[in-house]
Amino acid sequence: MKTVLLAGGTGGAKLARGLLDIAGDALTVIANTADDIEIYRAHVSPDPDLVTFWLADRIDGRGWGLDGDTFTVMDALREAGEEIWFNLGDRDLALCLRRAQRLADGATLTEVLAEHAAAFGVSARVLPMCDGPVRTHVMAGGEWWRLQEFLVRRRAQGPVDGVALEGAEAARPTAAVLEAIAEADAIVIGPSNPIISIGPILALGGIHDALRTAAAPVVAVSPFVGGRVLKGPTASFLRWAGRDATPAGVAEHYAGVADGFVSDEQIAGAAMAQLVTDVTLGDAAARARVASEVLDFARSLR
Amino acid sequence: MKTVLLAGGTGGAKLARGLLDIAGDALTVIANTADDIEIYRAHVSPDPDLVTFWLADRIDGRGWGLDGDTFTVMDALREAGEEIWFNLGDRDLALCLRRAQRLADGATLTEVLAEHAAAFGVSARVLPMCDGPVRTHVMAGGEWWRLQEFLVRRRAQGPVDGVALEGAEAARPTAAVLEAIAEADAIVIGPSNPIISIGPILALGGIHDALRTAAAPVVAVSPFVGGRVLKGPTASFLRWAGRDATPAGVAEHYAGVADGFVSDEQIAGAAMAQLVTDVTLGDAAARARVASEVLDFARSLR
Repeated sequence: MKTVLLAGGTGGAKLARGLLDIAGDALTVIANTADDIEIYRAHVSPDPDLVTFWLADRIDGRGWGLDGDTFTVMDALREAGEEIWFNLGDRDLALCLRRAQRLADGATLTEVLAEHAAAFGVSARVLPMCDGPVRTHVMAGGEWWRLQEFLVRRRAQGPVDGVALEGAEAARPTAAVLEAIAEADAIVIGPSNPIISIGPILALGGIHDALRTAAAPVVAVSPFVGGRVLKGPTASFLRWAGRDATPAGVAEHYAGVADGFVSDEQIAGAAMAQLVTDVTLGDAAARARVASEVLDFARSLR
Repeated sequence: MKTVLLAGGTGGAKLARGLLDIAGDALTVIANTADDIEIYRAHVSPDPDLVTFWLADRIDGRGWGLDGDTFTVMDALREAGEEIWFNLGDRDLALCLRRAQRLADGATLTEVLAEHAAAFGVSARVLPMCDGPVRTHVMAGGEWWRLQEFLVRRRAQGPVDGVALEGAEAARPTAAVLEAIAEADAIVIGPSNPIISIGPILALGGIHDALRTAAAPVVAVSPFVGGRVLKGPTASFLRWAGRDATPAGVAEHYAGVADGFVSDEQIAGAAMAQLVTDVTLGDAAARARVASEVLDFARSLR
């Protein structure tokens, strides 16, 4: 079953790992690149890399970065007088330096992510949502922050007073993204932050048309588990967008895009088909079960 | 005693360490930057860094790089499919990434080397010969090689059929270099490769005038020990330059620049004053002794 997953970082990446068990190399993940950052002369792509590390079973127990990575370069930069606010392991940095170099040499981000997935032995495809730069900025505390600075330096402290997707107007989904969507049997919107992780993907020119005209049903998975989001500042962003910080708010947000919604709460008066099930992605069995149920649900909507 | 040392890598760096014992923070090293290389998104300055690592007593036992450095990033790059021909430790890379970033941000190489020396607690000054790019290329086996590629990939295999100093015509010594030379009590040309380590420094426009008009005597130290060069392909380069691969050949090469020559062989008919002494720099005591004798010799020539 040709499965396309739109994903941000942690939640989307965990569901990607579950879908890999079910769909195998028929899985294509379209990852948000609007929180990419150029730092330490490297090009860091947090969401695509989280997805790749999860798919390769190489994610570290801390929830980001490569398993067992060391931080020697960061230590040395600190000793040389740098203020280190964005932590990157040595092996992680190597990938990000290589990406920056390949991009400088004229490769596309699509090509580089494919090379990295191959180097990690990942058979599924990990596509960036676009090859051009889109960068999320967040207004909070009276200041605009680059997304990673908001998340790390400000510790994601809301309320969020603004979100700007720099470059989104000019950016277009890649041919590979459009083709994957057109050929899919199921399209899944992962349990990632709807505003800053899925939002940039949906903001690309032409993506709404592509999803609307796709033969496959679009199924969104709620990032809420037992009424709360396990990681990240999803609630502040939903509130900024005028949505309730609940599965119902997320469902409302995806009305017009999704044909079905998966969450652990029955939503009264939802505008789309619903699957109510436990959406915890805590271990491999849970990830595979949720993935399987999501795909069955999508199949039922065709 | 205000001491200026013109230096390339290993030999010059070892003498720098000896001179530090004698001259302390009155030592200024002017380091060759013509074998700098941009690689891994970093700016590598092999000779200035060798000098700094030696001055900080941080040189690794292998003869290059930082003591006890690890090579995790290189390993990861190799796993990602990169061909790694130029090895750089993790902490070393951190410095070189920082240098590339500072240069991209508009800092001068002079400023960055000063920051790195300070971070290493080095009280002597380590100056780049110039702030602009000069790059050595070597013709061997019918091909032009960038210097580091000649040294590493071709393993410095001669004969050398050409040497080109790209950018040397346009490059000028920095104000700091000219001031150090003008104010020096002694100017020492280190036991580095006369053609590719000292040659680029002497090729800078105005440097000959600066040395000629300086009040201080100029004393060159032979890179030959017991008739041979302990490290590097000095002999092939001297032959290319039409000099004998002997202390006499080096003395002849420096005629017109140096007022005195230090080597472990009496040279018949030398055009300058001579000090014949053991120039082995094998341990700290030897380095300090040679440094002390070189400075005494320079003092005798004032």
